[in-house]
Amino acid sequence: MNKPQIVWHPSLVSREQREATNGHKAAVVWFTGLPGSGKSTTAHEVERQLFALGCQAYVLDGDNVRHGLSADLGFSPEHRSEHLRRIAELSRLVHDSGMIVLCAFVSPTRASRDKVRALIPAGAFFEAYCRCPVGVCAERDPKGFYAKAQAGQIKDYTGVSAPYEEPAAPELVIDTATQSVAQCAADVIGLLQSRGIIRSAAARAPASKGI
Amino acid sequence: MNKPQIVWHPSLVSREQREATNGHKAAVVWFTGLPGSGKSTTAHEVERQLFALGCQAYVLDGDNVRHGLSADLGFSPEHRSEHLRRIAELSRLVHDSGMIVLCAFVSPTRASRDKVRALIPAGAFFEAYCRCPVGVCAERDPKGFYAKAQAGQIKDYTGVSAPYEEPAAPELVIDTATQSVAQCAADVIGLLQSRGIIRSAAARAPASKGI
Repeated sequence: MNKPQIVWHPSLVSREQREATNGHKAAVVWFTGLPGSGKSTTAHEVERQLFALGCQAYVLDGDNVRHGLSADLGFSPEHRSEHLRRIAELSRLVHDSGMIVLCAFVSPTRASRDKVRALIPAGAFFEAYCRCPVGVCAERDPKGFYAKAQAGQIKDYTGVSAPYEEPAAPELVIDTATQSVAQCAADVIGLLQSRGIIRSAAARAPASKGI
Repeated sequence: MNKPQIVWHPSLVSREQREATNGHKAAVVWFTGLPGSGKSTTAHEVERQLFALGCQAYVLDGDNVRHGLSADLGFSPEHRSEHLRRIAELSRLVHDSGMIVLCAFVSPTRASRDKVRALIPAGAFFEAYCRCPVGVCAERDPKGFYAKAQAGQIKDYTGVSAPYEEPAAPELVIDTATQSVAQCAADVIGLLQSRGIIRSAAARAPASKGI
């Protein structure tokens, strides 16, 4: 859309300044996987642990974004695409504010996930694939949606009546079928430490604040 | 839109816990006023000062949101309404993350501003009216848009060819026509102190971190 009356207004506080104050880098961890694969559960546990470490972290997930920002959108391919576009822009802004953004979205297509990756600075985007067989997800069925989808009461349900494309080269594969939530979260914390987003336990000075 | 497959996933970290760690409350300051009235300039200076005080603060403004989240929207009444709806939901999420959100949007109608207010907890939303005569704004015309609007090259331009409704009962009126940017920002900082969002200078313990 041609909007000549828009000019970017630069911030007086850079993300690098925010990172220095926060004591960790900003990042986006993008949890993808089938419904019921444990994306939100893992993301919330990671958020809890990061907060305990003194980090600024925040979960964006399909549930709370669809209740608000995407409340006007459904599950058709066009609406899923627009939903993901908005989340990508939302993630970019929250990342710019200095946060470790924990995004838990089915995000079934590689193309949509790559669009998010392209918006985030190199080295700050981490695709975390919550790998869990559809049979296990359907058996868990914490919200009863697999049963409804299989009965035809919900249309376009990923894993039942809509496709899911596995990530080709995710930064992390989390075995959410067999591991505990604590272990899944530990995998993510370990990734963030190894990639220099947060400090490792060994690097923490005894008297330092937070991480 | 009826979406039976959406259930809210509660966070394991409350906003109150975030506020305790940050040392200040979360809030939304909503700068409204004509184009060129100094909304973004004031918001960015407030962000700079809050950051220097050790606060978590972030600016959302018409320019950077329209480049991303609302890139598909123009300036018709319908698109302005959807733009404001998205910003309201965005502000709600960023506020929930513990931030002092500084929103600078023309937001020309009372109804649209009241919709944002309704989404934010009572006592955490502050409407800050940047009051500046349209003649002064048009004379400043930092982006050259008033001239284009007056020449008919930009349609639906607030103050020229689209209406602006003054706030009926804003929490703060900032005299952006005659005051310096520093004084405008000081007005906002003073409001946040008097309403208990951030601590006043007198209440700061000598050895405490940040504010």
